[in-house]
Order: sequence, then structure tokens, then C-alpha cells
Amino acid sequence: MGFPAGEQLLSEIATNGGHGEKSSYFDGWKAYDGDPYHPTENPEGVIQMGLAENQLSHDLPEEWMWKHPEASICTPEGVAQFKAVANFQDYHGLPPFRHGVAKLMEKERGGMVKFDPDRIVMSGGATGAQETLAFCLANPGDAFLVPVPYYPAFDRDFCWRSRARLLPITCDSSNNFKLTPSALQSALDDARIANIPVKGVLITNPSNPLGTTMDRSTLETLLHFTNTHRLHLICDEIFAGTVFDSPAFISISQILLSHPAADPNLVHIVSSLSKTLGLPGFRVGLIYSYNDAVVATARKMSSFNLVSTQTQHLLAAMLADDDFVSNYLEENARRLRERRDLFVGGLGRVGIRCLEGNGGLFCWMDLGAFLKERSTEGELKLWRAIVHDVKLNVSPGSSFHCQEPGWFRVCFANMDDETTEVALRRIRMFVDRESVVEKQQQKKMRFMKDTGLKLSLPRRLEELAAMTPRLPSPHSPLVRATT
Amino acid sequence: MGFPAGEQLLSEIATNGGHGEKSSYFDGWKAYDGDPYHPTENPEGVIQMGLAENQLSHDLPEEWMWKHPEASICTPEGVAQFKAVANFQDYHGLPPFRHGVAKLMEKERGGMVKFDPDRIVMSGGATGAQETLAFCLANPGDAFLVPVPYYPAFDRDFCWRSRARLLPITCDSSNNFKLTPSALQSALDDARIANIPVKGVLITNPSNPLGTTMDRSTLETLLHFTNTHRLHLICDEIFAGTVFDSPAFISISQILLSHPAADPNLVHIVSSLSKTLGLPGFRVGLIYSYNDAVVATARKMSSFNLVSTQTQHLLAAMLADDDFVSNYLEENARRLRERRDLFVGGLGRVGIRCLEGNGGLFCWMDLGAFLKERSTEGELKLWRAIVHDVKLNVSPGSSFHCQEPGWFRVCFANMDDETTEVALRRIRMFVDRESVVEKQQQKKMRFMKDTGLKLSLPRRLEELAAMTPRLPSPHSPLVRATT
Repeated sequence: MGFPAGEQLLSEIATNGGHGEKSSYFDGWKAYDGDPYHPTENPEGVIQMGLAENQLSHDLPEEWMWKHPEASICTPEGVAQFKAVANFQDYHGLPPFRHGVAKLMEKERGGMVKFDPDRIVMSGGATGAQETLAFCLANPGDAFLVPVPYYPAFDRDFCWRSRARLLPITCDSSNNFKLTPSALQSALDDARIANIPVKGVLITNPSNPLGTTMDRSTLETLLHFTNTHRLHLICDEIFAGTVFDSPAFISISQILLSHPAADPNLVHIVSSLSKTLGLPGFRVGLIYSYNDAVVATARKMSSFNLVSTQTQHLLAAMLADDDFVSNYLEENARRLRERRDLFVGGLGRVGIRCLEGNGGLFCWMDLGAFLKERSTEGELKLWRAIVHDVKLNVSPGSSFHCQEPGWFRVCFANMDDETTEVALRRIRMFVDRESVVEKQQQKKMRFMKDTGLKLSLPRRLEELAAMTPRLPSPHSPLVRATT
Repeated sequence: MGFPAGEQLLSEIATNGGHGEKSSYFDGWKAYDGDPYHPTENPEGVIQMGLAENQLSHDLPEEWMWKHPEASICTPEGVAQFKAVANFQDYHGLPPFRHGVAKLMEKERGGMVKFDPDRIVMSGGATGAQETLAFCLANPGDAFLVPVPYYPAFDRDFCWRSRARLLPITCDSSNNFKLTPSALQSALDDARIANIPVKGVLITNPSNPLGTTMDRSTLETLLHFTNTHRLHLICDEIFAGTVFDSPAFISISQILLSHPAADPNLVHIVSSLSKTLGLPGFRVGLIYSYNDAVVATARKMSSFNLVSTQTQHLLAAMLADDDFVSNYLEENARRLRERRDLFVGGLGRVGIRCLEGNGGLFCWMDLGAFLKERSTEGELKLWRAIVHDVKLNVSPGSSFHCQEPGWFRVCFANMDDETTEVALRRIRMFVDRESVVEKQQQKKMRFMKDTGLKLSLPRRLEELAAMTPRLPSPHSPLVRATT
């Protein structure tokens, strides 16, 4: 049976590529998916370093559950709650769940602020939270300003179905990608010149992909700027619970507290349990808005992506255990720091520098020195070689809309120590090989120069990239819910 | 701090009322919420008969869980799976979950058809499924035709954020609200005259609110009509597992099977575990599309509303238990039939007729004889009296866009037998009182006629409705995820 021309009966958004699947960010996942590393079964496979998952502390909630069978509706100790929990579909969520989440958010922020459980809205992952806020705050065509580099899937989450837009605020390595007042102003001016209505600013803090937290003065600048121009400020703080080093994390909620003249109605926080607790499968993304109308509207929209009550019920009990939560946060930070030291230290020993980070599940790695050509195309050639030859799926800066070629986001918390060592060994070999190639090329260049010959020298990396077949992935989980 | 004029910085859809919350359908929930019936604590409270929940068979999954602690990641027997399950966020879903769902869908349809697990897409409840299909198939302003009466929250689910539209296909009691070819054609003609692009037809089968299943010839008419006009056909079959009486349920999938010339690319099914298994809190809504492009696009969109992997994992094990599922479906149908007989039989004994139904969790009750005025306003006056005086939250036909006043949807499976009896007693008292009032009025009318007097007689129900204060509900779960 023919469906003429395949897709013309579908909607524009179903066919316009706005989902962003064709980005190199997702392409790397395909490569991993077609040839995943396994220490014994596929030791030459691709190591997944493109996924911001926290797999370092699962033993802690596991142990908690052993000790607390009554927390689940699936145990003899807890099954009496089955009917009530399975039936509950109120979009406010189970009150103990919202209370637990509010308490966790407070602890993640060092107990410096209070959160009102009645302002917490469920959203099926941070993915859903971003979309919900876009639908609440922006009409189709309206824009939010976002510092680059930014999380690639924001294009899907914030823009795809809402038809909102994201406009870049330029940041670069000259000041460690710090957001400046002039860059902010200039992004707004550019939008106004282009006649694009700007409704707000969207930031990630801690930053994905930088792995850094925003300092107090930058946050104050942002709050002042958005207040002055009557813009919304969305602070995606889903990595708040992954800050493992000084300086301490500062949330926009703390800045609001110390600036009572600022209008809280313009401020909205995105939170999640996926990163802190390593539970992305549970789909606990949350919106915390200081604006009553946004809370009310987002709550109505949450009908589209509530958290399973089975999951709410379990987590409510876990989060109510103060000692567990405090110990978890401390121990998890310790393990993340240790892993960062292992990985970033290893890179340093082969001369690869990373932006100095204090949070997140990744580092922002500078491979500028390895570029044959300082352009996005040059970066993608290097990236293809890393994915297909070195067999590491890292994410190129250009997929994060970074305007400066040569940067890569490398996730380090979704594997064990042994895999981390394998990844480091591969990087070492790559660096060694590159310097040999480099030396040979320099030698040949000198020879040509000396003899007057003009030759088009093959570039090893380009050749490799061209020779490596792209892996088919007919059934790929390439577009994960969130990363 | 002032946020000038409250909401003007929010989006149009946040402020345009498209969510439909102001419908009497949701108003009834507020009334219940402010004064919920409890047999001992609030015996005069409102009984909730506006919620299509299945609470008759929870003991069966409860018992299954007692016997299968290994199915959960929260038990000593199952906790070893915790890390893998909590981490899994692939938007294809856990393969055993999709297999289990496909098998359940087959059993719900009497084993007459096969479903391909690779065509099953998660959608966070049927609420999310409807929205996802709207985004996949319709551009803003595009319309789907829908037989009236239809489920009130389709306006939220299908239209609110997607900006798609629903246009009514007229059905009425003259043929028991059966969809006719001429009504279909006439709805399409009307849309074309009004220059509204029509992209498809949306039906519920079994029907919500009618509680009836569609017969083979009507389904064939629909398939032929949509094929002829190159329209999509969305069949919401979420009540498939609640058919408790003959005739047997016929799914569009069976019609497709016996019409190989029809184009399956135009057919999409919405399914759910909420009604069959009574698990609305678990948010398992599903799309089954025969169109590859729709499956691919809907799967990308499912990033916004995946089912918690904790829930997927548990249900995968439960649905893999063939004996359990078969026994459940049979026993659940038996209990639903028994409840229907109790409730509809009770109504019949006081002279209230319902449309003859064979499925769903509700009946379609005809109170036309009690209307003082045959209009929507007359229906709403009667409804307010029923909610606030009789203290039963039933849903007026007008909230289902029914064009004929006097019909009400009454849910009967979300309570125990005792509460059902209380509801029936209240209805009996109401009918008795109404007939006394009616007789008094007739007597007065006769008296006036005899004496030549002309008086404006107070209408008891109108007075009551006007006197009964509307209940405030500052924190109401009025807009549930689905019903």
C-alpha cells in the first residue's frame, strides 16, 4: 500500500528536522550503539563518553532499599499501599514526594534557601520541564537568549514543538567562557535589530557542557539584566547535586534571597533527580517557579508528563530519610571529585588541558592543538577520528553551538574505573601517534622546503575519517530522553 | 514586587483558557474535592461519579506482587536490577515491557490480531498520546473530526498546545448516538465550506462517554471514508480491556486485517493500562501506529513523557505472566458487568434509562424527563442540583459537547458496592422528590387553569441551584491527568 510521497500527510514539525537528531551529538551515540565497548566481549568497541550519567553511587540507594522494603508498593511490607498509589493521578503529585524533593533541593544548595513544596511541578524529566516552560512563557517565534556553548538537546526540548527560538550569547575561552554583561546586551541588541521578540534568558548552572558553576556577580548581573528588561530567567540547575569541588554552588534562589527588590515572578528553576541520584530512567524532572501563574499553568501542562506514582511513592520515602540524603550527597561528591581527578589528571599527563570545573558529570576538553584546520569542519574531522579510530564517543563543541573550534565535552561518571583507564590509554596512544605524524609531516615539509618540491600531503586524520564506514543503527536509542 | 497585570509576560496558550478547565466537567470535580463523601467521616459528602477509574480489581495485581517480589527493583529478590533499570532512559523502552504491552493488547482484542512491539510508543498516559499524535499529524489550525459526545479533555490533550482543532460529527439519541456515513460526510463538507483543513477523524472505541462499542459496519465505513479522503484515523481504544458484555469489542486493527486494500499508514491506535488494570498513576499510555514515520516521530517526542523504568520493569514481569493476564481480564470483566447490573438495574427501578452499554467504566444516563427546559442551560441547572443537592458528581452531556440536552455520564467502577448503594438511594430520593414537586406543580397548574389565575411558579431546582454556594477549592486536583 502506498502512502504517497511518504510523509506529506504529517505535520510540519514531524518533517522539518527541528528535533535536531542529525546533530553530531546524536551521531556519536549511533556510533557507540553500533559497537559498544565491553571489557571482555568487545574490548575494541566504542566507549560511551557522550552521556552525562551518574553511575558512581548506585550502591547507596540500592543499600537503602534493602533496608527499607516498606517504601515500595511491591513488597509484602508495602503492598497494602498498592491500590491507593496506583490509582493516584492528581497533577499536584503525592504531597510527601513534593516535600522530599523540596528538602533535597535545599540540601543541594547547602541549606541556604527554603523551597515551597507547593511550587514544585512535575515534568517527566528536565526534557519535559524545558518544554513546559517554553509553552508557558513563549509564543511561537519568541526567543530566549542562551550562553554558548549550550546543551544540544535544548533545541529539541525548548524549541521543537513550542516553536520558541534560542539565540546565542557569545562566550569564549578568553575568559573561560564566562558570561559578560556586554555579551548579554549585545545578544539582546542583535535580536531587537532582527526584530525578534525576546522573552527571557536561559542558563544552565552548573553549566552543561562546561562543568563550571556561575559566580555570584555573574548571577547578579543576570538577575539585574532580566529585571531591567522585564525578561524571564530560566535557571536549569539539574547538576546542582553534582558539585564536587570549590567554589560552592550558588543557586539563583540564593541571589533572589539577597536581592529583595528583584521580581521573583520572572525567575524559574529547572531541577531533576536524574543527575544527583543517578536515576534518569525514573523521569523525575521538576519546575520550581516563583510565579504563581506559571506554577498554575505548568501544573495543568504536567498532565502530559507526570511522574509514575510508583516512583513518587518510593522516592518520597527515600528523600524523607535525612541522614541518607545528607550522606549520599557528601559521598557522591567525593566520588565524583575522585573520578574527575583520575580522568582530568590523566589527560593532563599527556598534555591535554580541560577547563577547570567544579561540578557536572563531564569536563570541557581543549583539543585545539590537534586541529589541522581551525574551523567547525576541522573540529568535526578530528571528532570523527576520535569516535571511529580512537573509539571514544565524545561530543564536539560545535554540537553545543560553541563558536570556537577544538573543544569537546567528555563525560566521565557513566563508567567504572577500569573503563576510565582504558579510555585514558586510548587517548594516550592517540596523542603519541599524533605527535609522530606531526613530526613526520614536519620532517617532510622541511624536506620539501629544502628540495623545492610541492606535494599535497595526505592528512592522516582526514583519510581515516573518510575511510571509516558510518555505522548503521536501525534501532538506535540515539535520542535519549535527556543527557 | 509587582508583576504588572499579572500574566502579560506569559504565552498566549498560558492565558487563553484553551486548557478547558472552566468546563462543568472539571467544576464537578471541584465540588467533590471540597466535600468528598466518606462513609463514616463525611456521609453527607459528594460522591465522585465523574472519574472513569477502575477500582474493582486491584486485589489481583496486589496478590500477584505478593507472589512475585523478584519483579520489583525494590525487593531483596530484585534489587540487583536497580542500577540497570534506574539508569535506562532509552526512548524505545525496555524490550520486555513493549512485548508485554503488545501481548496485553492482543488479549484485550480476543487474540484476533497481532501487535508488533516495535510499533509501540510510550506517551505518559493517553493524555500524552493524544497530544503526541496531534503534533505528528496536524499543523496549527488543522482539524480532526470527532463524533459527539466526546471526552471533554480531548480539548486539552489534542488541541491545547498543538493548536489543532476538533470539529464535531453530529450523533444523537435517535439511533443511539451511532455514527452515520451522512453525518461524517456532512462534518467534512461543513469544514470545507468553512475553509478548515481536515487531517483526520478521531474516535473512542469503546466510546467515552457512551460505554458502547462500535459495530463492524461503522468501523468499515470509517476506514473507507478516511481512506477515500486521505485522512488519518485515530482510534482511542483505551477502554478495550473494560468490555464486559456482548457484543464483543472489535478493534480497528481487526478491520484493517480483513481489508488488505486499506492503507494502514493512516491508522493510529491509542492504548493504555490505566483503565484495564486500574493503574492511572503509573502513566502508561501508548501509541500504536501502522505508519513508520509516525512511529519514528512519536518516539522522538516520547522523550517528553516516557514511562518510569521502575514501572516498565514491574509491568513487564506482570504482563509476561500469561495466566495472570488472562484470568485478570476475565475476572475484571465479570466484576464490571456485575457492577453495571447493580447500578444500571437500580436506576431502571426508579424509571431512569441508560443507553445500553457493553464496556467502559460508566453509563450514559438519560435525565431528559427531569429537565425543566430542554436546553444546555436547563441541563446545567439540573446538573448543579444533582451535584450540590443530591451530592453526586456526575458529568453533564454538554461538557462532552453532546448536542442533545439531558444526558449525563455516570462512572460506576471507582467505588465499592456500599457507596454504589448510597448513590442509588440518593438518586431514588431525588426522583421521589421530583415527582412530588412535579405533582404539586401539575396540581397548581390545574388550579390556576380552573381559576383563571396566572402565577410565575418558582422552580424548585433552579432555586436550589441558585442558593447553593459554589465550593471554593484553592488546591484542587480538579484537572486530573486523564479520566
